[in-house]
Amino acid sequence: MPLVRISIMKGKLEGFGKRIGAVVYRTMVDTINVPEKDNFQIITEHEPNTLIYDQSYLDIPRTDGIVVIQITLNEGRTLELKKIFFKTLADKLNSELHVRTEDVFVSLVEVKKENWSFGNGVAQYAQ
Amino acid sequence: MPLVRISIMKGKLEGFGKRIGAVVYRTMVDTINVPEKDNFQIITEHEPNTLIYDQSYLDIPRTDGIVVIQITLNEGRTLELKKIFFKTLADKLNSELHVRTEDVFVSLVEVKKENWSFGNGVAQYAQ
Amino acid sequence: MPLVRISIMKGKLEGFGKRIGAVVYRTMVDTINVPEKDNFQIITEHEPNTLIYDQSYLDIPRTDGIVVIQITLNEGRTLELKKIFFKTLADKLNSELHVRTEDVFVSLVEVKKENWSFGNGVAQYAQ
Repeated sequence: MPLVRISIMKGKLEGFGKRIGAVVYRTMVDTINVPEKDNFQIITEHEPNTLIYDQSYLDIPRTDGIVVIQITLNEGRTLELKKIFFKTLADKLNSELHVRTEDVFVSLVEVKKENWSFGNGVAQYAQ
Repeated sequence: MPLVRISIMKGKLEGFGKRIGAVVYRTMVDTINVPEKDNFQIITEHEPNTLIYDQSYLDIPRTDGIVVIQITLNEGRTLELKKIFFKTLADKLNSELHVRTEDVFVSLVEVKKENWSFGNGVAQYAQ
Repeated sequence: MPLVRISIMKGKLEGFGKRIGAVVYRTMVDTINVPEKDNFQIITEHEPNTLIYDQSYLDIPRTDGIVVIQITLNEGRTLELKKIFFKTLADKLNSELHVRTEDVFVSLVEVKKENWSFGNGVAQYAQ
């Protein structure tokens, strides 16, 4: 159900965006009850002119290693779960892929369960 | 009003994404009361490394023919209408463009009517 | 906090999308209480086949100069503020960058304050 959009700068190793996505997916499964295999992601790579970020907003020093992650997912996760997700994700991207934790930007967009079709023209989550 | 984002793999015929978009537009008009001409879409084509999908989530077999469609639209459509939309869309993409119904992934993001400007700096839908 | 996605046609001067983004950012700060430095944007450039728009919906004549701007931001701005934002943005894009006001398309997606992490794995806006 989550649809994940990841944006990074060009010039990383081939497949780096996909590896980031794999960590995002695994962290969602481990911390916010996303089902196993529920993994759908769109990754874009950018020139500096097309991925804009502030280098110090909220006194967090950011670099061109920035990773912008926007996730559309079902509403209803508690604030506590979201906090655990943000923390775990930044820590794992750092420990597994050497992304600076300062460079992990996350935006969640919550929608209703009935707003998805995973194929075959059916709203699989609607009851 | 709907803003449609469509993501497919590279390597299709030139304009294939646009043809998918035309079916999405026509189906929205026919099934969920989208006004004629209200047609705004952004299409991206991807290498396998940048369009990630699970090949069997919910026991639906997906292929590289996957079409990921995310639609931002006004809130308020009933579940019944959404179901008709999902079903009609998958069927038409299949019958008109030979997209496998299993490969039609749809995500809806609902917003308020006042959240759009279609030009001239006016919130045309706000009353 | 706002995450801004801007889509334009290819073929403009290098950095034109970024200049549009700078006007969007400045207008958000000036009209809808976005904090200084809260500037995060993703810009994509398109062939005509991948940026679809209607040339006359709502009797507004649009051209390939179209600028599609989708902004994810915190909920709670009043309709009045949104109207001022739309108007100011179209006017400034016109006066500063010669974008036709008819070609300024804006979509807002509102989310909860707690749905953001600006780095370090923290939900900075959550209280």
